[in-house]
Amino acid sequence: MKRLILATLLLAASAFPQGRGPQLVSPEVGADRTITLRYNAPNAKAVTANGELDGKPHPMTKDANGIWSVKIGPLAPDIYTYSFNADGVVALDPRNTNTKYGYGNFGPVSVVEVPGDTPQFYDTKDVAHGEVRILPYVSKTLGLNRTLWIYTPAGYDKGKNYPVLYLLHGAGDIESGWTMIGRANNILDNLIAEKKAKPMVVVMPLGHTIQSFWTGPAKSAPAPGQQPPSQLSPFANDLLNDVMPLVEKNYKVSNKPSQRAIAGLSMGGMQTMNIAFNKPELFTEVGIMSAGVANVDQTYADFFKTASEKTKHWKNLWVAIGKDDALMINNAKALDEALKAKNIKHEMRITEGRHEWTVWRHHLNELAPKLFR
Amino acid sequence: MKRLILATLLLAASAFPQGRGPQLVSPEVGADRTITLRYNAPNAKAVTANGELDGKPHPMTKDANGIWSVKIGPLAPDIYTYSFNADGVVALDPRNTNTKYGYGNFGPVSVVEVPGDTPQFYDTKDVAHGEVRILPYVSKTLGLNRTLWIYTPAGYDKGKNYPVLYLLHGAGDIESGWTMIGRANNILDNLIAEKKAKPMVVVMPLGHTIQSFWTGPAKSAPAPGQQPPSQLSPFANDLLNDVMPLVEKNYKVSNKPSQRAIAGLSMGGMQTMNIAFNKPELFTEVGIMSAGVANVDQTYADFFKTASEKTKHWKNLWVAIGKDDALMINNAKALDEALKAKNIKHEMRITEGRHEWTVWRHHLNELAPKLFR
Repeated sequence: MKRLILATLLLAASAFPQGRGPQLVSPEVGADRTITLRYNAPNAKAVTANGELDGKPHPMTKDANGIWSVKIGPLAPDIYTYSFNADGVVALDPRNTNTKYGYGNFGPVSVVEVPGDTPQFYDTKDVAHGEVRILPYVSKTLGLNRTLWIYTPAGYDKGKNYPVLYLLHGAGDIESGWTMIGRANNILDNLIAEKKAKPMVVVMPLGHTIQSFWTGPAKSAPAPGQQPPSQLSPFANDLLNDVMPLVEKNYKVSNKPSQRAIAGLSMGGMQTMNIAFNKPELFTEVGIMSAGVANVDQTYADFFKTASEKTKHWKNLWVAIGKDDALMINNAKALDEALKAKNIKHEMRITEGRHEWTVWRHHLNELAPKLFR
Repeated sequence: MKRLILATLLLAASAFPQGRGPQLVSPEVGADRTITLRYNAPNAKAVTANGELDGKPHPMTKDANGIWSVKIGPLAPDIYTYSFNADGVVALDPRNTNTKYGYGNFGPVSVVEVPGDTPQFYDTKDVAHGEVRILPYVSKTLGLNRTLWIYTPAGYDKGKNYPVLYLLHGAGDIESGWTMIGRANNILDNLIAEKKAKPMVVVMPLGHTIQSFWTGPAKSAPAPGQQPPSQLSPFANDLLNDVMPLVEKNYKVSNKPSQRAIAGLSMGGMQTMNIAFNKPELFTEVGIMSAGVANVDQTYADFFKTASEKTKHWKNLWVAIGKDDALMINNAKALDEALKAKNIKHEMRITEGRHEWTVWRHHLNELAPKLFR
């Protein structure tokens, strides 16, 4: 059977004009935690490997057969994304089937995990496992078909009245992001198994106002036109008017603000501010990762005017940023300053890292244990 | 907020050395159901677009700016996959964020849906929706971390004792395939809403004996070495010894063979034969899509010797194949002949189509209504 399947695989591969080029091994992860990348591009003049590797582009070297390669690292155990740039054209690693969905200018990228000596906090371990449930819904707010990805912890079927975290992805991702590259379910499974986090439901919506890829043809909601940046965005209205009622009707979650948190990274962090600063009464815990906006106190002037009053029921306002996050460090620090200026209780957490998933898995691993205590 | 998010998107895109090239629109789906593909590759000598479009490679034409393009179609409403081949190098469409996970030589490809005048049978409609649940598990059989994707129909939480279909993907896919490109959940939701199919649970395992991409570092089970092709494969042992007990313990499914079906496409069809022909007592309905093996009566000599006795409790044995499936049409016809020669009741269904997903969505849409009647 095995031989027959292999023979069929090879036959199938040759039956299609999509041949993936020579049977290179790429990526190759060494026992010393180096990553060797190889790419067949005989006509290219210059090829680099780029991504969440060590923050630098890596020029590759061509051999006599037109195969470009580079050895990177050793790198710390982690999950890295990368792509090739051949004379300005971006390509995934055609020999690597581990892919990350991407959005817009970010596009899909290749993924490689460098293992640790033991399973890491984001790996599946031999503990009780929750599920991630993909639920299609028709958004009345946006007029689009979308899916929600919802983590339910182990034992959910017998439990009730779970606290709920709304967890928002960044501009380069879609609703699968927090599960497939963020490993939110593994992180929660492991924290809950070790009793470091409370069992909770985590709702992961699609942050772009588009139709979900696996629900129907590509389609976007009309752009909202000019609106004050502090006003609830179309995404926020979908979350508040479609998603939250659907979740509270169909899942065993509390509808009390004391049992409701919202957090997000990058674009999702800005959406978190947009929602939590406009509707502070709906939440008790707020996490803003790798995000901020310029002149936050003016942008959200209404909120900041009486913020310490409006947020006095908040138990956690957590602002986290990688110290090498060139994109957002200034905005995050400005947010910290604005909150301090108004005596709004919060934690400012500056971690290792840049503006990438190697940071956000750690952030979730730090945030989840704080919630619903 | 919208403007700020857009500004951040642009900033983020320029902050990374992964720029996706010029802001081309690709794919562009016309009102006339043509697809225009565009690709920036100024240094390439020849570029074609290939895939599940109309079965032919499409040479592209370069303009003065180094942008290659081609208009394809009009095509029937469907979901198509494609990739570019630039001088022998395969690349996804860097402007299209809709991607299909792929495996091995198939690799990831780009996806485009050509809409119909109304939502199609595989689109999300405004009906009651089931969920697809992603459940990590540790396979004792394989020594690997894997995930199961499990469709539970609308109303599942209040129901009980559902019939269960084990649904296997092909060599080019992983466990997400039947959901993300196959749209199995939308197909079932729509059939069940129209009362054309019975509510059922559908279990979609990972068909390759590898670790699932989102559970831990890349890892494969050791190759089984020489074994008779009729012997249960390592995948089959994982399904029978890890997956089925887990499903029957944790989900509201019947454990009666009369309420258990198995079906698969291509490699998954061969796995279906491997499992159902070795363990005919476990199932009552069997679907083999776009699959077969050479000399099936000799390969499965033990089964065929007393097959009509062993399968007399089977209510459906459904063999389906696209009439233009160059890869499998002969094997599928040989299977039909072998079954006829032994008077084994079955249905041989020759449909439109080649060896691709445009066929398999239709096959599931035909098979599901037959089951558990």
